Amino acid sequence: MTQRADQPLQDGTIEKIEELFESTGRVARRHFRGDLEALAAADKGGAAGYDPVTAADEEIEALLRAGISRFSPGDRVIGEEGGASGPQDARRTWFLDPIDGTKAFLTGMTGWGTLVGVVEDGRAVAGWMDQPVLGETFAAVDGRAVVRRPAAGGGSVEVTDLRASGCTELSEAILYTTHPSMFGEAGGEARRRYDELGLRVRLQRFGGDCYAYCMLAAGRVDLVVESELNAYDIVALIPIVEAAGGVVVGSDGGQPLEGGTVVAAATRELAEQAWAVLRPEG
Amino acid sequence: MTQRADQPLQDGTIEKIEELFESTGRVARRHFRGDLEALAAADKGGAAGYDPVTAADEEIEALLRAGISRFSPGDRVIGEEGGASGPQDARRTWFLDPIDGTKAFLTGMTGWGTLVGVVEDGRAVAGWMDQPVLGETFAAVDGRAVVRRPAAGGGSVEVTDLRASGCTELSEAILYTTHPSMFGEAGGEARRRYDELGLRVRLQRFGGDCYAYCMLAAGRVDLVVESELNAYDIVALIPIVEAAGGVVVGSDGGQPLEGGTVVAAATRELAEQAWAVLRPEG
Repeated sequence: MTQRADQPLQDGTIEKIEELFESTGRVARRHFRGDLEALAAADKGGAAGYDPVTAADEEIEALLRAGISRFSPGDRVIGEEGGASGPQDARRTWFLDPIDGTKAFLTGMTGWGTLVGVVEDGRAVAGWMDQPVLGETFAAVDGRAVVRRPAAGGGSVEVTDLRASGCTELSEAILYTTHPSMFGEAGGEARRRYDELGLRVRLQRFGGDCYAYCMLAAGRVDLVVESELNAYDIVALIPIVEAAGGVVVGSDGGQPLEGGTVVAAATRELAEQAWAVLRPEG
Repeated sequence: MTQRADQPLQDGTIEKIEELFESTGRVARRHFRGDLEALAAADKGGAAGYDPVTAADEEIEALLRAGISRFSPGDRVIGEEGGASGPQDARRTWFLDPIDGTKAFLTGMTGWGTLVGVVEDGRAVAGWMDQPVLGETFAAVDGRAVVRRPAAGGGSVEVTDLRASGCTELSEAILYTTHPSMFGEAGGEARRRYDELGLRVRLQRFGGDCYAYCMLAAGRVDLVVESELNAYDIVALIPIVEAAGGVVVGSDGGQPLEGGTVVAAATRELAEQAWAVLRPEG
């Protein structure tokens, strides 16, 4: 009989997962700053196929999988690199994206992060976004969302509760989307609707990747709308936004646990207004 | 008679300017992390008009102006907040943008920076981009471009020379632009040409702000194309890109010391290919 994860996640697992980010962060930073000789060699064809993003992805996912199987055996794990493992009927499933925002990573920007999300009984209940260059970990467990970052002046760590802005009006909202091509080529119907949404908000910006959802949780951004997401791109971010008072709504009105098109918003009212533009018939 | 700046910039001024970034960085970080009580009060209408970007802009520019007038008296200074001061015929002009990338700053992203650029005898000869959240200073003086950032593990500072990628083909280039609206509304001629450029490159991303030019200097991005820039948005970045082996080309083919539309590229070949798309008649 398959071992089941009936222990609550709160049983020491949280601290152990967060400790894992020390190792994964070191790996991410090393590849981000480039194994520069390897990158230069690859440029010259000398280290054919050296791909820092894939290398970091693989190392980090292996560390996370090993840790989870140690701390919380019997759970299902679904990751970008390694696919699914563990029993299909496990009560708890972990979703891993070792480097979410690979194009940001590749180009030296800091919107990328390591995502770990937990689904129990069909709901996203805990999530982490670790940004090791900034030294920040965004975490949501037990309905509380926080960011841990180095305190000003260095040395200690500062823990700050996250609180979404409370914005309820599209015309007052700041919208982020990683790239408009998520909604297809210009001229297509999905893109036309997305562009219309961009015209209705107070400020529309591109970029941001998973960091934009965390800035929504922090009250700095009001709305993040994206499409063509995988489950492991979004599951970790749902609890962070929700525990900060926001919502993440998929095309069926529920938590978008399978990815697809998602609207993350500071309030339900705002999410509904965004969906009304994205899907006028809805 | 007005005092003139005939001493070379190298005479201790560089170290003093870079020391100033310790003070300006503290100011920037404090406003970036929000004077959170003031922000919350402003949200509730309690601190009417509290604008963290403007507050940071004003404090930082005042610090920079005071420092420059002390270290390099008699120079002309042109800043985003305070306009122009000093003799119009000064040999040396400093261009200051205390917070370049105000929308990134406002929304919690890290593409913004403090820009200080030096023009002597009609050429941009030295520049700095300080990003105090990442703890990074990009600097170009005397034809050498470097980034100083905290060493992995913390404590010491690591100095890394910057080297552009050498990319010579549009079809292989990674292009950044802060926002497509820099080229006007969809359907306009400038925007149509910009969009065409976006289709010809290997990868096109939005966001990045002044940090994208630094990533070009670091070899992570090959091309940055922007429009509607002010002089103080670009002067500091020109020496950083040039000293890393890249070019920054305005619509007249020279250094875009007055801003406008700019093409920053890893190589002159790449810049020429970009301009050929942006200005087919040129």
